[in-house]
Amino acid sequence: MNILLVNDDGITAPGILCAARFLSQKHNVVVCAPESEQSAVGHGITLRFPLWVRKLDINEPFEMYAVSGTPADCVKIGLDVIYKDKGIVPDVVVSGINRGENLGTDVIYSGTVSGALEGAIAGVPSLAVSVADFKDPIYETAALFLLKFLEEFDLKQIPRFTALNINVPSIPYEKIKGWRLTRQSKRRYEDYFEQRVDPYGRKYYWMLGDIIEDDPDPKADYKALAQGYISVTPITIFMTNEELLKELEAKYHGDKDIR
Amino acid sequence: MNILLVNDDGITAPGILCAARFLSQKHNVVVCAPESEQSAVGHGITLRFPLWVRKLDINEPFEMYAVSGTPADCVKIGLDVIYKDKGIVPDVVVSGINRGENLGTDVIYSGTVSGALEGAIAGVPSLAVSVADFKDPIYETAALFLLKFLEEFDLKQIPRFTALNINVPSIPYEKIKGWRLTRQSKRRYEDYFEQRVDPYGRKYYWMLGDIIEDDPDPKADYKALAQGYISVTPITIFMTNEELLKELEAKYHGDKDIR
Repeated sequence: MNILLVNDDGITAPGILCAARFLSQKHNVVVCAPESEQSAVGHGITLRFPLWVRKLDINEPFEMYAVSGTPADCVKIGLDVIYKDKGIVPDVVVSGINRGENLGTDVIYSGTVSGALEGAIAGVPSLAVSVADFKDPIYETAALFLLKFLEEFDLKQIPRFTALNINVPSIPYEKIKGWRLTRQSKRRYEDYFEQRVDPYGRKYYWMLGDIIEDDPDPKADYKALAQGYISVTPITIFMTNEELLKELEAKYHGDKDIR
Repeated sequence: MNILLVNDDGITAPGILCAARFLSQKHNVVVCAPESEQSAVGHGITLRFPLWVRKLDINEPFEMYAVSGTPADCVKIGLDVIYKDKGIVPDVVVSGINRGENLGTDVIYSGTVSGALEGAIAGVPSLAVSVADFKDPIYETAALFLLKFLEEFDLKQIPRFTALNINVPSIPYEKIKGWRLTRQSKRRYEDYFEQRVDPYGRKYYWMLGDIIEDDPDPKADYKALAQGYISVTPITIFMTNEELLKELEAKYHGDKDIR
């Protein structure tokens, strides 16, 4: 397979290198990643500035390009410039392996997920892959799973505008119990700010948050991980709240006057 | 009502000033907006750096705070620092008025929408408001509609984790035909890059795109605007593709072994 590999931790991050080395054992891999860390950039794109692309001189069985932009920029450049020059469309976009999980509300902040969603918009089957440990992540487990998953899962099952959000426990591969289909949960953060004063007398604030895990859904993404499973959640870019739309339509019939 | 007003075009943008002046005729408004333009930042948050907040000295019937971050940061700071210090929770978060529409796939790139979604996560009813013209937007039409909508629409109908994405045609108010409930459409961009060479001999790329409007859905958001209506789309932060989840569950029963 031809694999476009992106991330949001930046091109020098260990997670993307681990993914590239594992995947290139069996596949043709092109790495196209932000030259600097882009965590929690969300689905940003660079419109007001142009993008610079630099091919790195590396001694590896894959190509590596550093882009002066976000994960979504990297997917666009990867598809519309790098792969276009080769005359091929890649078979899959892989975004990751991210340092830290992307569960619940993380999904909308995550540059890793946005890389996969950008591939999904372009019509290429796409996976976001994260390891659920920020401190000392075991990337090899996720990389091994990725190799196996790409062999066994028929990517054609993923429709356009949808991607798979995969989260892997940070434990040795042989301790993983399996993978499980899950739903994006209500896992979220109770934010608070720590106030400090800088050397120039100005107040500034560090954002902190406590994790809230109170989703009653047994399919909640984070529950799979807590039980030693890899979570696989199909996510779409279409965010319409269909239930509320139906409710409101029943209440407000047809077009509403504003005079 | 107590209104937290944010945007992604930055605190000096005419759209947020127009909204603040109209809304403060009837409501208590606190503006909390990025000190610099943050368009297409997506739902980014600032984790690796702290945030600076500066209260501006203005001669207006509302307060104004400039934040060194993204729209989502502004909502967090607005709720967890500024309103917290006042001892109140605002009745509504308004994000806008944005220069340019947020329709179809724009929704996932949009800093304006992310401001509203951040309010929705925090449990405050939230609206994103955009004018469908980038060149010469008529903000007053959207501001007038906003005032009227806040009077007539019961915000308690919006459940937590859901916001309303409102797009207003850039035409005089009296020419607006009304408002309509819509669905986030498949409207998207066919991207391409224009390659140039900088004065130092390095290639760089400008991102460009042609708009694709081929959604067969009569409720597609962009169709309301083309017909002279304001579109109101309820959007949620939960992106699970429920249809695909059901299909995959039927195919892969229970937990999947990875050995």
